Amino acid sequence: METAFDRIRNHRLHERVVTAEEAASWIQHGMTLGLSGFTRAGDAKAVPRALAERAKHEKLKVNVYTGASLGSDIDKLLAEAGLLHKRLPFQVDPTMRKKINQGEFYFIDQHLSETAELVRGQVLEPIDIAIVEAIAITEDDMIIPTTSVGNSMVFAHHAKSIIVEINLAQSPLLEGLHDIYEPGKQGERAPIPLTKPDDRLGTAGIPFDMSKVRGIVFTNQTDSPSTVTTPDAETNQIAQHLIAFLRQEVRAGRLTNRLAPLQSGIGSVSNAVFHGLLQSEFTDLEVYSEVLQDAVFDLMDAGKVRYASCSSITLSRGKMEEVFPRLEKYRDRLILRPQEISNHPEVIRRMGLIAINTALEFDIYGNVNSTHVLGTQMMNGIGGSGDFARNARISIFVTKSIAKDGNISSIVPFVSHVDHTEHDVDVVVTEQGYADLRGLAPRERAPLIIERCTHPLYREQLMDYYEEALARGGQTPHALEKALSWHTNYAQTGTMLQRVLQTK
Amino acid sequence: METAFDRIRNHRLHERVVTAEEAASWIQHGMTLGLSGFTRAGDAKAVPRALAERAKHEKLKVNVYTGASLGSDIDKLLAEAGLLHKRLPFQVDPTMRKKINQGEFYFIDQHLSETAELVRGQVLEPIDIAIVEAIAITEDDMIIPTTSVGNSMVFAHHAKSIIVEINLAQSPLLEGLHDIYEPGKQGERAPIPLTKPDDRLGTAGIPFDMSKVRGIVFTNQTDSPSTVTTPDAETNQIAQHLIAFLRQEVRAGRLTNRLAPLQSGIGSVSNAVFHGLLQSEFTDLEVYSEVLQDAVFDLMDAGKVRYASCSSITLSRGKMEEVFPRLEKYRDRLILRPQEISNHPEVIRRMGLIAINTALEFDIYGNVNSTHVLGTQMMNGIGGSGDFARNARISIFVTKSIAKDGNISSIVPFVSHVDHTEHDVDVVVTEQGYADLRGLAPRERAPLIIERCTHPLYREQLMDYYEEALARGGQTPHALEKALSWHTNYAQTGTMLQRVLQTK
Repeated sequence: METAFDRIRNHRLHERVVTAEEAASWIQHGMTLGLSGFTRAGDAKAVPRALAERAKHEKLKVNVYTGASLGSDIDKLLAEAGLLHKRLPFQVDPTMRKKINQGEFYFIDQHLSETAELVRGQVLEPIDIAIVEAIAITEDDMIIPTTSVGNSMVFAHHAKSIIVEINLAQSPLLEGLHDIYEPGKQGERAPIPLTKPDDRLGTAGIPFDMSKVRGIVFTNQTDSPSTVTTPDAETNQIAQHLIAFLRQEVRAGRLTNRLAPLQSGIGSVSNAVFHGLLQSEFTDLEVYSEVLQDAVFDLMDAGKVRYASCSSITLSRGKMEEVFPRLEKYRDRLILRPQEISNHPEVIRRMGLIAINTALEFDIYGNVNSTHVLGTQMMNGIGGSGDFARNARISIFVTKSIAKDGNISSIVPFVSHVDHTEHDVDVVVTEQGYADLRGLAPRERAPLIIERCTHPLYREQLMDYYEEALARGGQTPHALEKALSWHTNYAQTGTMLQRVLQTK
Repeated sequence: METAFDRIRNHRLHERVVTAEEAASWIQHGMTLGLSGFTRAGDAKAVPRALAERAKHEKLKVNVYTGASLGSDIDKLLAEAGLLHKRLPFQVDPTMRKKINQGEFYFIDQHLSETAELVRGQVLEPIDIAIVEAIAITEDDMIIPTTSVGNSMVFAHHAKSIIVEINLAQSPLLEGLHDIYEPGKQGERAPIPLTKPDDRLGTAGIPFDMSKVRGIVFTNQTDSPSTVTTPDAETNQIAQHLIAFLRQEVRAGRLTNRLAPLQSGIGSVSNAVFHGLLQSEFTDLEVYSEVLQDAVFDLMDAGKVRYASCSSITLSRGKMEEVFPRLEKYRDRLILRPQEISNHPEVIRRMGLIAINTALEFDIYGNVNSTHVLGTQMMNGIGGSGDFARNARISIFVTKSIAKDGNISSIVPFVSHVDHTEHDVDVVVTEQGYADLRGLAPRERAPLIIERCTHPLYREQLMDYYEEALARGGQTPHALEKALSWHTNYAQTGTMLQRVLQTK
């Protein structure tokens, strides 16, 4: 019978097994930590938790870099413990978000492909300790990651020391699914030799310097399941409009029924859009994305998706139980890559992806806010949306047209924060319809967006703004003193609706 | 003695020589034209002029795509003639700009690397006629471009027919400097095999289908000289601050005195910055840019720049007369590429460029407006700045801290239009100093930008705004109802200065 120690196949490392508490005791005030974990998948679980525990009795501040968001309440615990000085590049935890917005610690919202460049280029604070979850350590000194790769490779390579968490709850069948490729320094690197989603470039694990491994901790805890909600009437309508747009592309001869490699951001809307493809005529699809959610496995099971490349697998509880024990079934159709490869501008542009990401709001000219509520309060972060939107063949943003019972319009005169400029936004989709903005000037975009995507509650109000702006002229007409008034009205009165405001 | 016809080395094409007027007569209402020309260099001169003449007596509307801006008053003439329906992707002409802002025709402001993808991908209106300036047509049916390559290759490949303007005033020594590489369709292409600025990938000219050449026109007219002004006290200070930043990078071990391949946007500030390098310790430099201006040739003459890659050469009158007859001197150190290669995200990221571009204004968090005066009026366009800023190793934006005798601050609470988000802006420089924003959260960026880059006239006023915003909280604090007040104040009263406003 396999014992936990069998997962450390280089036996000389057996003596480095310690408790999480001991490993956490090595972390000192002022250090910078590089943690595995990407969208709740494959996060280091025990040492960060022990560190948060320690911080209850001790003044400690550290910088924490990750792949993306963590699960297992780690971000919550770190934030509550007051442990953080700086956190990057992404998070989704409500407690952490609150403390970020209160200014309790610094949060850097970063394109997910870029963190690795900044670590490698010695631009960020150097990493003292990398803490990386693994399935196993091989005889030839490779760390086999679990359900995500994220930034683990670059953290392990650049950290002064490494702590490995071997998680016995993660399926050993994950081994062999990873493809670890190190592009090298900017200015010295070769082209990334990836031209198709199923190309394998590197090694099955993260090669590392054995002498840097300071400790190995055993854990036995599954990833946090995804919190994606099931598709509803509106997200289904969004999916249908998006499929209608894709059909138009096929009719125009720009795509075939195989489409182009698909990327989809995390979240319920994106998951619903992928679900919508189940009933479509599109087939033999490829996915080249950062996160695989439930819908991608449904599409693989239905024979719709032939191959899926990602940096992490984030599933609901039920889907985890279904997929992970049966990974053999997907072995030839699945690959996990470092996030700088899954999100690399070079390969996204080369393959010409269709990128589908979620907007918080967009404006009448197609500028997108993905991150900041009322222009100030951080939601999650830009994540990989910029990596994909800028370089995709077709960059699509989706959102419901209204929020908060109709008191917020997701389509506004002027977005209160810009994450994606109109240059990078090709198609916008709401449950009302889609607007194909490609080849359109701002004055052509505005009426189309208002007509096709805006909720009827706000259509006239938005057209009134546009007409007033248009009378003043300009390439991108605005009535600047009113441009942000929808947001300030909402902040003051709880609604963006002019009609309601006038009767108040 | 060489005659004009000797430039058409495939003799079967001699019979296609026509007058510009005849060639222009083939253009019909509703057509889409693809014109050579990038930042006043290598533009088709005679046929567009004859077309503008024709339009005086005839109702004609066409779409005009180019590489970038045109010289020879072509954009002015096209705009005045009322000929345009849609123009893309860039322009700098004052008459054209005025008519764009009046809404007389549609202008699409586009990343300069992307036009070729959109033509190749059949997303834009198909091109009826490509009009391309050339030095010569070779025996084996290649068009040898002149002082720019721009989008000429993709226009010639995808147009239904081609008109070639052979310009006898362009130096025949340009032949051999071009490197024409066609990356192929997205989804079918290989990695672009370029890892150093001096790599040659393709052919010396644009291969074309002879049967598509409808006419050949002889011209004899030099490019319009650049309008770059000589460095002044402020642009020299900007250059010195930028050099101080680069020295810091060398001291930190992130760069050597050879720096990294340099890109610089067009304009007087960028030219002054390059001039500043003349007196620096940096040596053996490489330039990988879209336009080469006067300063790059001074740097080559001084032995500072070992190699320069570009998509166009745009010089002052004096420098043209100096450089073009002596191109032999630069032959091994100069290359002209299609703009999708000079500006390609893949190669920019791979080589890790240092990108220097000009901002119209930036805000306290590092968002940059490159295009829209008061958020509405188009200046020139985003050009290549987005291609470079997003993918560079270090993305630098420069501007003078004030304009209009101090009535405009180039650093504002909230930019009135966003072309580059804070994610893509590493360093901002004014004559006051530089702010290195890398690794800083928004709350760290704001005080640094205010202290280092803002003009003393506006420093307190900007700090007052930031403090008020900070009291309200958020990842990116704003007092949203005042965020655009500096712009609306300027529009109403002619100044952004609070002190002046209060005494008015």
